[in-house]
Amino acid sequence: MRTHGGGTTTGRQMKVYALVLQKKGNEGFLLPCVTKHEQEGVFSMERIRTIEVDQHVGEQVRLQGWLHSLRQLGGVTFLILRDGWGTIQAVSENAAVFAPLREQQCGVESLITLVGTVVSEAQAPGGIELHQPTVEVIIPITEPPPVALNKRKLSAQVSTLLDHAVVTNRHPARRAVLRLAAGVMYGYRSALLAKNFTEIQTPKIVASATESGANVFKLDYFGRPAYLAQSPQFYKQIMVGVFERVFEVGPVFRAEPHDTTRHINEYVSLDAEMGFIEDHFTVMGVLRDVIDTILATLRTQYATELALLQVQMPDVPQQIPHIHFADAQELIWREHGLDVRGEPDLSPQDERWLGEWAQREFGSAFLFVTGYPMRKRPFYTHPDPQRPAYSNSFDLLFRGVELVTGGQRLHRYDDYLAALHAAKLPLEPFESYLEAFKYGMPPHGGFAIGSERLVMQLIGLANVKLATTFPRDIQRLTP
Amino acid sequence: MRTHGGGTTTGRQMKVYALVLQKKGNEGFLLPCVTKHEQEGVFSMERIRTIEVDQHVGEQVRLQGWLHSLRQLGGVTFLILRDGWGTIQAVSENAAVFAPLREQQCGVESLITLVGTVVSEAQAPGGIELHQPTVEVIIPITEPPPVALNKRKLSAQVSTLLDHAVVTNRHPARRAVLRLAAGVMYGYRSALLAKNFTEIQTPKIVASATESGANVFKLDYFGRPAYLAQSPQFYKQIMVGVFERVFEVGPVFRAEPHDTTRHINEYVSLDAEMGFIEDHFTVMGVLRDVIDTILATLRTQYATELALLQVQMPDVPQQIPHIHFADAQELIWREHGLDVRGEPDLSPQDERWLGEWAQREFGSAFLFVTGYPMRKRPFYTHPDPQRPAYSNSFDLLFRGVELVTGGQRLHRYDDYLAALHAAKLPLEPFESYLEAFKYGMPPHGGFAIGSERLVMQLIGLANVKLATTFPRDIQRLTP
Repeated sequence: MRTHGGGTTTGRQMKVYALVLQKKGNEGFLLPCVTKHEQEGVFSMERIRTIEVDQHVGEQVRLQGWLHSLRQLGGVTFLILRDGWGTIQAVSENAAVFAPLREQQCGVESLITLVGTVVSEAQAPGGIELHQPTVEVIIPITEPPPVALNKRKLSAQVSTLLDHAVVTNRHPARRAVLRLAAGVMYGYRSALLAKNFTEIQTPKIVASATESGANVFKLDYFGRPAYLAQSPQFYKQIMVGVFERVFEVGPVFRAEPHDTTRHINEYVSLDAEMGFIEDHFTVMGVLRDVIDTILATLRTQYATELALLQVQMPDVPQQIPHIHFADAQELIWREHGLDVRGEPDLSPQDERWLGEWAQREFGSAFLFVTGYPMRKRPFYTHPDPQRPAYSNSFDLLFRGVELVTGGQRLHRYDDYLAALHAAKLPLEPFESYLEAFKYGMPPHGGFAIGSERLVMQLIGLANVKLATTFPRDIQRLTP
Repeated sequence: MRTHGGGTTTGRQMKVYALVLQKKGNEGFLLPCVTKHEQEGVFSMERIRTIEVDQHVGEQVRLQGWLHSLRQLGGVTFLILRDGWGTIQAVSENAAVFAPLREQQCGVESLITLVGTVVSEAQAPGGIELHQPTVEVIIPITEPPPVALNKRKLSAQVSTLLDHAVVTNRHPARRAVLRLAAGVMYGYRSALLAKNFTEIQTPKIVASATESGANVFKLDYFGRPAYLAQSPQFYKQIMVGVFERVFEVGPVFRAEPHDTTRHINEYVSLDAEMGFIEDHFTVMGVLRDVIDTILATLRTQYATELALLQVQMPDVPQQIPHIHFADAQELIWREHGLDVRGEPDLSPQDERWLGEWAQREFGSAFLFVTGYPMRKRPFYTHPDPQRPAYSNSFDLLFRGVELVTGGQRLHRYDDYLAALHAAKLPLEPFESYLEAFKYGMPPHGGFAIGSERLVMQLIGLANVKLATTFPRDIQRLTP
C-alpha cells in the first residue's frame, strides 16, 4: 500500500525511463514495451521512432506502428511501417521473415513490432531502410480500410474522406495538413507573445449574440436560452482593459445555413485585440508581422510537411499594399466594367479580382482592403473621422480570399450609447460589456484570423473542410 | 489608391516602428501615440511599459495607462499609473503638475499619459519612481468603480467580484491569477511538445454525449439535436490512430445542476492521449513529468505573479506515491473509523484524508489513487487484467482534491462491442468512434487536467470561479 512509483510498474521499465530522461533531459522520449511477451530478446530493445532511424545507421533498431504496406517485387518483399511521425521501409528476400503476418492474416493497418538493421540506401524512400527484418504482430487487422492509405494521393471524394475521417486522417498527406494547422497556432502564439500579448480563455456559452442575431446556435442553459459564441469579440475588448494586449485561440460557432467550400460551422478563430492604437493602421502593422511569423514558423519547423504537400509559400511584403473600399470598387468598375460602386460589401468575385490586381501590381499575395462602409459593420465599429460613412476597419485578402477581418472599435462609453441607439438595439443585453467602457478604455482594435481558412489558402485545398480534423457543416455532425 | 504602407499612417510612426524592430528584432514593442496632439514636446517620446522603467534610471520616460491611485500625504502627491503589465509611482511636491486631472475631474481608471524622470528610491514600490512628472489626460473617468481596484486586497464578496468581473479583473491580484492560468497552459504545451505529442483541435458540437447521457447541454443544430462536448475523449482516442501522441487545450461543457466552490459548467480541459503504453502506469509517468514542467514554467517565468499571490509552490516527487482504490478505502476505515469499503467512488472527505496521509507519509502534495471500480467508470475503460472488477485507471489528487482523471482505454474492436453490449448501450451513436478500432489501435491511455482546478488548488483560491476570466455556473451567464 505504501509502495512508491509514479512511473511504470516493472523495475526494467523504471530503469529505461530514468535513463532516457537523464540522457535527453526533458526531451526524453519514453515508449515502453507493449506486452511482457515482447520483453524477450530483440523485442526488449528500446523503441525508437521512424524519424529517428537515420541516426542509427549500422545499428539494430526496434520500431512499432501500423503496417502501412506490404508488397512483393520479384522475390523481394517490401514492408513499410508507419508510426505517429513518419514511415520506414524494411526489405527482405527471405519471405519466411513475414510468416507471422501471413499466419494471422494481417492486412494493412495491423499493429506490428519491427526489428532490423539500419542501412543507407539511395533507392529507398528517405535514403534509408531496414535489412534483416524481424516482425511481430501486436494486433492483426483483416478488413481493408474504406480508402487506401498507402497510395501517394488520397483518391476519394471529399464526402468519403470526411465520412471516414477517423481513418483517412491517418494518410501521410492528411497528417501533414493537420500538423500544419498546429504549426499555424504555434506561429500565431509566438508572434503575439513576442509582442507582449497575454493569452486568454473566454466563455463559449454566452447570454446574447455578439455579431448579429442571425447565424447563432441556440442552447438550453438550465432552462434559460443561451447561445454559442460567434466570436470572443466582446470579451477580448473587455480584456484590453485588463492586459491591454490580449489574444485567444479557440473555437467559434456560426449557424450559417449554407454549404460552401469555404465555410464551416465551427472553426478555430485566432483573435487578438490591443489598446493605445492610433487607428486601424496600427493593428494592420501588427497583423503583418503576425502573418510573417506564422509563415516563418512553418518554413523552419514544418519543412517536411510543406515539402510533402508541395506548398507554394508566399512572401509577406515589408509593407502589405492597401486599398480603400471605395477605391477598390472604382478599380473593379474601371478594370472589369462591373459597376459594384454603392454595394455595401465585396463579393467573392470582387475579392478574387482584387487579389489578382495586388499580385500583378505589387507582387503580393496579400492585400488590405480598408474603410468598409459603416452600414455593413457591427455597432462597435469605429467610423473614419474624416469620412464617417466609412469605417476604420479592414479585411486582409490572401490570394483573393478574405482571411482576416479587423479594425478599430469605439472606446468611449457615450459613443457606445449613441451607436446602440442608432442601431435600434436595446442596452440591457450589453450591460456588462458597456461596464468596461464606463471605467476607462483606451483607443483599441484587433483582428480575427480564420485558422482553417489560412490553412486552406496556404496549401491550396479545394475545400476548407479538409483543413481540420473533423469538420462541422450543415449536414455533418459526425465523426 | 496604389499607396503602400501596411504599418502605420504617418512617416514619423513608420520610423519609430522600423527603429524598434531593428533594435529588438521580433521582440520589438510597438506602442504608437494615441493622438496627434500628443506628438508634441515630451509627449512625442516613444512610450515604454511600466515593467521597463527600471532600465531607464536617470532618463526621462513616457508611459500610458490607467490612473490607478492619486493621494496626498503632507504636501506630497503620489500618483500610481497602471498599464497592462504593472504599476509605477510618480511623486511631486508641486500640486500644479496634476492640474489637468483636477480640471477634468479625473477619478481613478481615467486614462492618462505620464512623463517623468526615473529615480531609484528604496522607499518606492519596486524601488523605483518618477520625479518631475507631467500628466496629460486621454480619457477622463468620473464615476468610481464598483469595487476599489487600488487596495492591496480585493475586499468584496465572490458574487460581487464576478458580477463586475469586467472591472475587477483589472486588479493586480486578479491579473496575476489570470496570468498564471496562461502559464499553466504554456507549461502544459511545452511538456507535451518535448515528449513529441501533436496538438489537435476537435469539435465541440457533437452528435452524442461522450461521458454519460446526463449533464450534457443540448443544442439545436439546424433542426437536429446536438450536444456540447463534455470532453474530447472519443476524438483524442481516435487521433492516437493518427499521431500516436496527441493533446488538446480547449473548452469542455458540463451541465452539472449544482453550485459548489469547485465546479464550473464550462472549463478548460488539458487533455492528452498516447499509444503503445504498457498500462495506466505509463500514462502516470508522463503525467508526473507534465505537472513538474508546468510548475517549473511558473517558477521561472511567472515569479512576479507567484510572489504577489504568495503561492506556496509544491515539489513534485521523482515518484509520486500511489495507492490502490481498495487499499485507500481500507486506510480510511483503519485511520478514521469510517467504513467506505464497497462505495464505488471516493467522497471529497475521503480525498482530503488521503491527501493529508500522502503529505504526512511521503511529504507529497500529490497522490495517485489507482484501480477505481469498473462499475463507476465509462464503458471505454480498460479493466485490470488481474482484478477485472477494478480498472486500469487513476485519479491524481493534489492537496486532497481530484485534479486529474486518467487511465488505460480498451483498444480492441471486439472489446468495445462487448463493453457496449454489457453497458446496454446501442452501437449506432458510436459507429464513427468504433471505426478507429476496426482499423487497428494500439494499447493507449491518457488523462485530463482541469485547468481552473489546478490554478485554484495551487494558489489556494476559495472558489474555482475565481480561477478564470468569466466563469459559467448554474446561475451565471454574464459577464
